[in-house]
Amino acid sequence: MSSAQKIRVAVIGASGYTGADLVRLAYAHPNMEIVALTANSHAGKPMETVFPHLSGLGLPGLVTNDEVDWSGVDAAFCGLPHATSQQVIKVLPEHLKIIDMSADFRLRDPEAYKQWYGNDHAALDLQAHAVYGLTEHYRDQIAGARLVACPGCYPTAVLMLLLPLVEAGLIDASDLVIDAKSGVSGAGRALKQNTLFCEAGEGMGPYSIGKHRHAPEIEQELSIAAGRDVIVNFTPHLVPMSRGEFITAYARLVPGKTARDCHEVLAERYDDEPFVNLA
Amino acid sequence: MSSAQKIRVAVIGASGYTGADLVRLAYAHPNMEIVALTANSHAGKPMETVFPHLSGLGLPGLVTNDEVDWSGVDAAFCGLPHATSQQVIKVLPEHLKIIDMSADFRLRDPEAYKQWYGNDHAALDLQAHAVYGLTEHYRDQIAGARLVACPGCYPTAVLMLLLPLVEAGLIDASDLVIDAKSGVSGAGRALKQNTLFCEAGEGMGPYSIGKHRHAPEIEQELSIAAGRDVIVNFTPHLVPMSRGEFITAYARLVPGKTARDCHEVLAERYDDEPFVNLA
Amino acid sequence: MSSAQKIRVAVIGASGYTGADLVRLAYAHPNMEIVALTANSHAGKPMETVFPHLSGLGLPGLVTNDEVDWSGVDAAFCGLPHATSQQVIKVLPEHLKIIDMSADFRLRDPEAYKQWYGNDHAALDLQAHAVYGLTEHYRDQIAGARLVACPGCYPTAVLMLLLPLVEAGLIDASDLVIDAKSGVSGAGRALKQNTLFCEAGEGMGPYSIGKHRHAPEIEQELSIAAGRDVIVNFTPHLVPMSRGEFITAYARLVPGKTARDCHEVLAERYDDEPFVNLA
Amino acid sequence: MSSAQKIRVAVIGASGYTGADLVRLAYAHPNMEIVALTANSHAGKPMETVFPHLSGLGLPGLVTNDEVDWSGVDAAFCGLPHATSQQVIKVLPEHLKIIDMSADFRLRDPEAYKQWYGNDHAALDLQAHAVYGLTEHYRDQIAGARLVACPGCYPTAVLMLLLPLVEAGLIDASDLVIDAKSGVSGAGRALKQNTLFCEAGEGMGPYSIGKHRHAPEIEQELSIAAGRDVIVNFTPHLVPMSRGEFITAYARLVPGKTARDCHEVLAERYDDEPFVNLA
Repeated sequence: MSSAQKIRVAVIGASGYTGADLVRLAYAHPNMEIVALTANSHAGKPMETVFPHLSGLGLPGLVTNDEVDWSGVDAAFCGLPHATSQQVIKVLPEHLKIIDMSADFRLRDPEAYKQWYGNDHAALDLQAHAVYGLTEHYRDQIAGARLVACPGCYPTAVLMLLLPLVEAGLIDASDLVIDAKSGVSGAGRALKQNTLFCEAGEGMGPYSIGKHRHAPEIEQELSIAAGRDVIVNFTPHLVPMSRGEFITAYARLVPGKTARDCHEVLAERYDDEPFVNLA
Repeated sequence: MSSAQKIRVAVIGASGYTGADLVRLAYAHPNMEIVALTANSHAGKPMETVFPHLSGLGLPGLVTNDEVDWSGVDAAFCGLPHATSQQVIKVLPEHLKIIDMSADFRLRDPEAYKQWYGNDHAALDLQAHAVYGLTEHYRDQIAGARLVACPGCYPTAVLMLLLPLVEAGLIDASDLVIDAKSGVSGAGRALKQNTLFCEAGEGMGPYSIGKHRHAPEIEQELSIAAGRDVIVNFTPHLVPMSRGEFITAYARLVPGKTARDCHEVLAERYDDEPFVNLA
Repeated sequence: MSSAQKIRVAVIGASGYTGADLVRLAYAHPNMEIVALTANSHAGKPMETVFPHLSGLGLPGLVTNDEVDWSGVDAAFCGLPHATSQQVIKVLPEHLKIIDMSADFRLRDPEAYKQWYGNDHAALDLQAHAVYGLTEHYRDQIAGARLVACPGCYPTAVLMLLLPLVEAGLIDASDLVIDAKSGVSGAGRALKQNTLFCEAGEGMGPYSIGKHRHAPEIEQELSIAAGRDVIVNFTPHLVPMSRGEFITAYARLVPGKTARDCHEVLAERYDDEPFVNLA
Repeated sequence: MSSAQKIRVAVIGASGYTGADLVRLAYAHPNMEIVALTANSHAGKPMETVFPHLSGLGLPGLVTNDEVDWSGVDAAFCGLPHATSQQVIKVLPEHLKIIDMSADFRLRDPEAYKQWYGNDHAALDLQAHAVYGLTEHYRDQIAGARLVACPGCYPTAVLMLLLPLVEAGLIDASDLVIDAKSGVSGAGRALKQNTLFCEAGEGMGPYSIGKHRHAPEIEQELSIAAGRDVIVNFTPHLVPMSRGEFITAYARLVPGKTARDCHEVLAERYDDEPFVNLA
């Protein structure tokens, strides 16, 4: 693909872990060209000052959102914290396709959003048209969407596993235990005591028991698949590794169904999906 | 306590991780004196050659079991692999108190032992009198036993949590999910590819799904507490930390019982136990 | 030793890494009894809230310095940051023996202190009588001192190795290269980006090249040993481990001297020292 | 570049860490097509069985060297252990370009090879024409070579730094101290006790002091640059990280030369080199 045909992308909030990893991936993507990187306190710096592993790539320097000439941008990835994300996205030009990596547009019900995130939703009209960006399950809608809400890390892992099984009626959606384990980068680059090397290393433990914000997101999608309200028992843990997460899900087979049935449904469902490996 | 009054202990298999850690603890124990350390391929070496962190303590050198003058020993801790442990323990002198840290005497039913460990039990008479060494639950029997079978790592963590709850009738023992996470030292010092630094670091995963040898041990003790056969859903994971393990157990409350009831039972049960901290 | 004979100690600044580790060691020490723990923002909490690994020991709760009844205290360990340490120590009652773990009293020359730490020394009279607390080299002076200045981590490691060799005239003190590697806890529990798990893990690098504050401390003591001004080439590195540090020192042998001579001098010098292991 | 124009490469010894990482890089390279992967004990398996992170890439399965149709291969990367590498490479067809990642062809002097590696060189005629593969310094010779000897990990890091400085006469090549720190994967995937997670984690230390096989390789190249025999003081350390290595080199400036001169020479020398980042 020639440079002229590439999608011109901006990364908003490029100085956080999420934004920086998007930069790493977008840089290597054959169909994207990074034309703008924005930040707040880091505006004015070259990207390699903030993330040395991104040195030598000829990336644009960090600027504020106001300094971007949006007419030269086709799509924006947004790596801001929730609540802030809404405020920024709602004033972006209409022509932009937006992929939001925060939690701001994941919950379809604004009441649920307020309940779990503590603030009124500030961009209800955008929310109404946002598409939940689990590509393997919403590919067609994503293709036509103006605003894509990237799923949370845990929901991605859980839904990729459980959605096809619930849809196929193989497991009992009323009795799901999800034991999740995450690396430390999931907590972002903000300074917190529990993510210091000496605190997070050589130990592990659960957090947000019974109140993690990814639970309603998992339940939202599983409820759609099940055709009725689903409540999950979801417990996340922090594990001493930088990246990656692991989900162990415990479900009861619907009578007459087998583990082999589950494997076959998953194998068929994800046969053509390049990012899914079935063990 | 004067030196003359101390219990004179030997550590059999002192060159493995289990044996070496027992040495570390016994050395600092006010009532024990280490009088012999045995090993197989490492016999003839000073302990500090095998484990430098045990340097400078004036420990006895590593010798073979045959070289020990057992008349000067009161108690032996045995840190050998299973199957080997039986063979060694059954020929030890009668006067010795023995604390076996292998799996050889944990399962009360020799048939279960054979099924899970693959060999006939070679010391059935000893097995008949062995006491399951979960101190907080079998303290009196341990005090009078000749042979104590130390519980496995996972059973220790699981039973300390679940035994009091099952005994008190607070949770439904027929529906228990146990998601366990272990550090790497649990696999011992043997050379295996999956415990290399570059393999075990920065990643995690489950192992022995549905067939881990600690499951029957957990079920044995929970069945006694419940007064009927208990089967658990037990899944262990390997996590990148050297020591420690973490258990997340999912249980249903018996109708009318509450999480607060559980907490109160545990608090009361372990109030005087110095090694139990309730969060 | 009966409780009545034990030294009653307070730990000032017990909520930092240095203070907490002192608590761990003092608790297990046969001749000490911990009678007070102080903190600033954590005052009012139990110690186990701040450091769960210190649960169940019956430790005194955290209080402010003003709340301590110093008449019941024989000695105080001070784990505060430098500059603050001076201010606190100079108003402590006269009868207290003080062991300061900060850098505030390590440099004998107040001008050097000001140059390296950026502030005027606020307790010059105390400084004049402080003893440099490298026990193996200043044991007699430490025994009689009112105020002991604990050496920095790097100086401890470096001086234990090089002091005897310089004193014995075995190495050329004018050409010393010291390459130091430290675990992350050396940076303390303060929130800094470079000590986050995802930043400090899976990578390493030097810091404070040519300007680390431990250099003048090393040079001070080596100069005394050499009888003339010594300047060292000292470069510290941060390595992904929680604890410990490793020093690689490069020195030229004085003509006619051998590596064996060095080993013999160290072996003889530290023969009776329980905390020194010579490989 | 169309598939027909790509260089068809084989990776010999693809089941080790070196071979597998070459596969990862070659797979993503725009000008290469992987047409064969060979192994010894793993022959017959798919690559993803041995390295799951290489799943789903459509890689050829592992076969023995004898099973490869070499007529369809343009170039071979060889990731075998030294000594074995010579034996395998000397019987490969003449038309193949060979990039050897072992140590077998790095030392230009067969006597030095025998002295450091303990065996007679088994492919002297190949050695005579091998090119030392430090691309930034031997680019032209590499382009025309049949056999390229990839430099060792330490020599790569050291020579990239020191070669330009020695060539420019800025530092005294007779007094070089090189303190090197390596991650654990440098030791390969072979089972060794010191690379177990619990042994390599949370600690570090030097190894092969004064006798590491990378020293003569460093000295060979620096001697060429200096125009006379260079001996370096080289000490490698093992550090708890999987990948990467760090070199701290201590050199004396030639009188009249400055650190700024060094920086300028390096900046100019590597200005166009995409894999070199100068801090």
